[in-house]
Amino acid sequence: MASTSSLTLSQALLAPAISHHGSAQSSDHHRLSLSTPSLPSFSGLKSTSSIPLATSSVRRRLAARQQIQIRAAAVETLDATAETSLVEKSVNTIRFLAIDAVEKANSGHPGLPMGCAPMGHILYDEIMRYNPKNPYWFNRDRFVLSAGHGCMLQYALLHLAGYDSVKEDDLKSFRQWGSRTPGHPENFETPGVEVTTGPLGQGIANAVGLALAEKHLAARYNKPDNEIVDHYTYVILGDGCQMEGIANEVCSLAGHWGLGKLIAFYDDNHISIDGDTAIAFTESVDKRFEGLGWHVIWVKNGNTGYDEIRAAIKEAKAVKDKPTLIKVTTTIGYGSPNKANSYSVHGSALGAKEVDATRKNLGWPYEPFHVPEDVKKHWSRHVPEGAAFEAEWNAKFAEYEKKYKEEAAELKSIITGELPAGWEKALPTYTPDSPAEATRNLSQTNLNALAKVLPGLLGGSADLASSNMTLLKMFGDFQKDTPEERNVRFGVREHGMGAICNGIALHSPGLIPYCATFFVFTDYMRAAIRISALCEAGVIYVMTHDSIGLGEDGPTHQPIEHLASFRAMPNILMLRPADGNETAGAYKVAVLNRKRPSILALSRQKLPNLAGTSIEGVEKGGYIISDNSSGNKPDVILIGTGSELEIAAKAAEELRKGGKAVRVVSFVSWELFDEQSDAYKESVLPEAVSARVSIEAGSTFGWQKIVGAKGKAIGIDRFGASAPAGKIYKEFGITVEAVIAAAKEAS
Amino acid sequence: MASTSSLTLSQALLAPAISHHGSAQSSDHHRLSLSTPSLPSFSGLKSTSSIPLATSSVRRRLAARQQIQIRAAAVETLDATAETSLVEKSVNTIRFLAIDAVEKANSGHPGLPMGCAPMGHILYDEIMRYNPKNPYWFNRDRFVLSAGHGCMLQYALLHLAGYDSVKEDDLKSFRQWGSRTPGHPENFETPGVEVTTGPLGQGIANAVGLALAEKHLAARYNKPDNEIVDHYTYVILGDGCQMEGIANEVCSLAGHWGLGKLIAFYDDNHISIDGDTAIAFTESVDKRFEGLGWHVIWVKNGNTGYDEIRAAIKEAKAVKDKPTLIKVTTTIGYGSPNKANSYSVHGSALGAKEVDATRKNLGWPYEPFHVPEDVKKHWSRHVPEGAAFEAEWNAKFAEYEKKYKEEAAELKSIITGELPAGWEKALPTYTPDSPAEATRNLSQTNLNALAKVLPGLLGGSADLASSNMTLLKMFGDFQKDTPEERNVRFGVREHGMGAICNGIALHSPGLIPYCATFFVFTDYMRAAIRISALCEAGVIYVMTHDSIGLGEDGPTHQPIEHLASFRAMPNILMLRPADGNETAGAYKVAVLNRKRPSILALSRQKLPNLAGTSIEGVEKGGYIISDNSSGNKPDVILIGTGSELEIAAKAAEELRKGGKAVRVVSFVSWELFDEQSDAYKESVLPEAVSARVSIEAGSTFGWQKIVGAKGKAIGIDRFGASAPAGKIYKEFGITVEAVIAAAKEAS
Repeated sequence: MASTSSLTLSQALLAPAISHHGSAQSSDHHRLSLSTPSLPSFSGLKSTSSIPLATSSVRRRLAARQQIQIRAAAVETLDATAETSLVEKSVNTIRFLAIDAVEKANSGHPGLPMGCAPMGHILYDEIMRYNPKNPYWFNRDRFVLSAGHGCMLQYALLHLAGYDSVKEDDLKSFRQWGSRTPGHPENFETPGVEVTTGPLGQGIANAVGLALAEKHLAARYNKPDNEIVDHYTYVILGDGCQMEGIANEVCSLAGHWGLGKLIAFYDDNHISIDGDTAIAFTESVDKRFEGLGWHVIWVKNGNTGYDEIRAAIKEAKAVKDKPTLIKVTTTIGYGSPNKANSYSVHGSALGAKEVDATRKNLGWPYEPFHVPEDVKKHWSRHVPEGAAFEAEWNAKFAEYEKKYKEEAAELKSIITGELPAGWEKALPTYTPDSPAEATRNLSQTNLNALAKVLPGLLGGSADLASSNMTLLKMFGDFQKDTPEERNVRFGVREHGMGAICNGIALHSPGLIPYCATFFVFTDYMRAAIRISALCEAGVIYVMTHDSIGLGEDGPTHQPIEHLASFRAMPNILMLRPADGNETAGAYKVAVLNRKRPSILALSRQKLPNLAGTSIEGVEKGGYIISDNSSGNKPDVILIGTGSELEIAAKAAEELRKGGKAVRVVSFVSWELFDEQSDAYKESVLPEAVSARVSIEAGSTFGWQKIVGAKGKAIGIDRFGASAPAGKIYKEFGITVEAVIAAAKEAS
Repeated sequence: MASTSSLTLSQALLAPAISHHGSAQSSDHHRLSLSTPSLPSFSGLKSTSSIPLATSSVRRRLAARQQIQIRAAAVETLDATAETSLVEKSVNTIRFLAIDAVEKANSGHPGLPMGCAPMGHILYDEIMRYNPKNPYWFNRDRFVLSAGHGCMLQYALLHLAGYDSVKEDDLKSFRQWGSRTPGHPENFETPGVEVTTGPLGQGIANAVGLALAEKHLAARYNKPDNEIVDHYTYVILGDGCQMEGIANEVCSLAGHWGLGKLIAFYDDNHISIDGDTAIAFTESVDKRFEGLGWHVIWVKNGNTGYDEIRAAIKEAKAVKDKPTLIKVTTTIGYGSPNKANSYSVHGSALGAKEVDATRKNLGWPYEPFHVPEDVKKHWSRHVPEGAAFEAEWNAKFAEYEKKYKEEAAELKSIITGELPAGWEKALPTYTPDSPAEATRNLSQTNLNALAKVLPGLLGGSADLASSNMTLLKMFGDFQKDTPEERNVRFGVREHGMGAICNGIALHSPGLIPYCATFFVFTDYMRAAIRISALCEAGVIYVMTHDSIGLGEDGPTHQPIEHLASFRAMPNILMLRPADGNETAGAYKVAVLNRKRPSILALSRQKLPNLAGTSIEGVEKGGYIISDNSSGNKPDVILIGTGSELEIAAKAAEELRKGGKAVRVVSFVSWELFDEQSDAYKESVLPEAVSARVSIEAGSTFGWQKIVGAKGKAIGIDRFGASAPAGKIYKEFGITVEAVIAAAKEAS
């Protein structure tokens, strides 16, 4: 994954959304609002006759939309049977697109799409509001397939709905090199896919983040006369997601926060990979979710009970103060005469024989990948309707902008991701005379300074706010009844916290979520952090207590291998600032990298402000903070990060007193340094100088690359210990004396 | 952490337990059984007069024990008031030992010990069966402080109970360098502490593992006339543990498995670090646990309701088919007039002033660390009683051994950890003519071969048994009603799985748990794996689908940085075998390393059996599989691991055809190679040969150490992709051609 740190790229991707917002400014805005909760949604089925919607102006589209609603109602009354048969045909189209794509790839998961096609159809065809031609339209309903292995369900739906990202050829190249239909849903590959799922439980957590973002933005920006933020978040999750601890974490929070517009479909099919769920999963999910504060509905016939599903959604929408779990009992692989309701249909192609049998069983005479004309026609309305949805919203936004100029500008920056001009001037700077401070405290200064200029900055800690120093002092807590506030209280739920932040980040380009715990507990949330990196979610991970320097809590709390473990991870920035200027620099980098997450490793203990550190230096990843050599030929180069840069600087002073030419390099981010030009790298770490000593209170793993075969890496390759920090540093040899000795030996 | 791979060391540590088993053989065995569930436990309080228990023979100890029971009953009836005051005195002793130790260290968590002292007292003084002078006695009740930050509670209890590991001086050196009373409970530092806790949720998961082990061993070895395995597992967990996803995972399993002898105390104090739990934790824990299949009891007054606590435990023991959660509502920091019931008492010393105020408030006139004489006397019975418990059990075991020779030998090997002689002969061997096989399949062959000779081998997968190939074919599933079986079905709960295995491993030295998922999902369970490494639990992690070679599932499922991330972790073996012999070698190493966990990275795809691979080679970590050079001076050294060793071997063949002297090195475990002599290392990777090429389908991070500045590391420093495996290998340049090109460039 090439690093995509530039803002420009991020904005380029979002160009469609941005241009639409632009056009909204000139459109008619005295229109029926589509986005008030009381407005009827597209639940009706409409005639299959062609609808004259392909007009160009917003005004006409809206007029047409009103016409559709009327028609739909008429059709429902007059010809319900025909319509139900069409629904069934559409549902079977979804099933066979999944079956055929998996068959062609000879790889994939047909079982879930076959079982969940009915709820998928109802969601995408009857319930959700979206614009296929602009998958980034801000006010769209969000859909997350938490059971990501069933991605052919979503690809089939995107295809029918008219998304350009999933054409017939894309279905035919399912799971192939370079296709837009990879093996699990990936937002960075397939416009229309909101988040990246597959690792179980992540999707429901992302969805909680999406719903949180909606509730938060609605609370901040909606006005009694203009509810400009208003969408639902829908999820499908399976037994696997339900078993994962992360799902319980985030569902507990969703209940606590009262995320009424989060509606989760639990595909209750009793089958997991190892067989019947009875072998490992006999809890009462209903009771647990009631305990978590959710509204729970059971749809007993998810295979053909279309009206049951519709009624459940209606009921879910009526419950506004609780998220809803709709338990939909389905048959995995529904329609396959010999494999339905068995684990064999979960994760393998049916095989030609069983595909034939299924075609016969469901009465499906068509060739692979065929979408019957009436189904095609039926779905074709979503392109014009989607355009109308967006146009209407644009009009509404224009009205909003006229009346609420300041709020509109803020919301726009959240929608587009464009950072306010001059925001970086808010970053604090320091001199060596500034008082010593723990970088966790400096981090709080930065967060509070940035919250004033970045409207999309919000976040919090996993029950360590007062240790991680993450409270935004001018804001209250995001809670059920105060969702406009920006301090999020995640409780002791690190994994859920990270994945919720992924959801927030992917909701809107200008939302900048941060989250915090002790650095060592990145182990609890590593799966979510990796997905941040993969799905290009610019989450800021504020990770304090970043070494043995935390002292008495001992080895369970002292990170050792964590810096190395993240340096090895693709598309993530591991930053370990040493003082005030470097902490500010780390925040500058983190805010600018909207498509790459950043981890800030911060000290518990106080650190002096060092001469030579700078924000600009941090942006280069590695840079010289002091040097008494000339001609780029120091006798020795001392390299430190974070709290150990001070040790390197002190050792340099001593060595210089002894006549040595010593360069001190701060190596705050390996990834950023790697991206510099060869000339710059040579200017910092000249190849000819092999006398190099690194010092970092963590694993030396990987440092050989920096210090070379003749250099020495001072670090810790064992677990830590429980004692005051100073004592541990001394006992573990992370000292000025050790650096001096190593420097003398090397040079 | 120095590597402690030798079996000898493990056995040395367990010498006391072993010697007691020895003595059991000659002891009297016609005795009242202490271990049947119906036997009354030590719930009575006994007279403070001195008890003549310090006798030497087992017979006398048992006689004395019976006498105590009678006395206790008498005292209870006659002098309940005095006794309650003594209980309160004991409880306050626990509180002040915690207060004083935290105060002296000026670091730690006084709040939990002050609130949980009553349940702690009742457990250790009235309920639990243990032998302070042999903390490793096999049939002891297990206690786990899942809320590990409150470790002073446990240290105080161990001190009062007479454990040698926590003397007064140890309390005084709480959280200091080299002390046996570190900042969180660590089994490897403090005999009497069962597992390592602190990272929240791990302890309750370990406890589920301990309870599983008990249920399993009881089912396998108990006889109608001799229930030789019979103990309870007690846990204290707090709000923090309850919020963690891992806790829900394992409690769901505990309910599913019906672990009736698991009794968990939930310290319901409504305070977490960030303040009132109402800010992030408003779910109904009771309802959730009922949903999870637990029996739930609420003790409303955990501060002084001794009888309520006792009654709850009695009730919990009566429910034999479900684990029990006793929700004990307490006041954090109980007794502190100004800090009780606030987060300020959670994680900091009270301060001299508040300590004084608390002393006054609770009427505690004593000096710091003082244990009043009557309290000391009261607790003094646990040393002789514990010896009697063990002696009686030893007698029982002797009887068992007489009658059930085979079972006794097996159980003994589980208790002692002594591997059966010649076990390693069960390992399969291969030749280059053996058919190609995925190492995940080879792994299953090994597991099934080993299960026949290692009675303590048991485990399973997180719902991927048929992909991870972990089923033991001759056994059924460990389930509620078939607990004697050895295939454990963990469901999709990776984190819980790892931590449960830690509990199993630490239950008995001869239990060898293995667990499995896709290698990439080690991210879900990394916190548990790290604790395996820290707490010296020799869990075998069977991690399949170990690279882009898994193909179509795509980047969410393809590990990249994972090998590097574990190579950086202390005290763990990262093994990546290349074929049949190497897989057998990896299992040999994993089984022998009982105090160091092993991770086996295994392929999804078929791999040929290579010439030159061997079990012995694996034991050295890195070794030569083929070489056409002489004088330890190859032109180039090709280094591969796992599935890429084949590529290195093929490239070598080509290069040799071109006249090059090429050595091929299998680098299956960096950690094991690091432990070899300098001479051996030089014989494999001679310093003079700088032309080195490594190939591994993972991050190149760290490989510079092996290939040197002039060498080349071929690997993948981006996320993977969704496509058939062969295609991805080719597109990513993990090919024979790439190795040949790099070798030519380097040599």
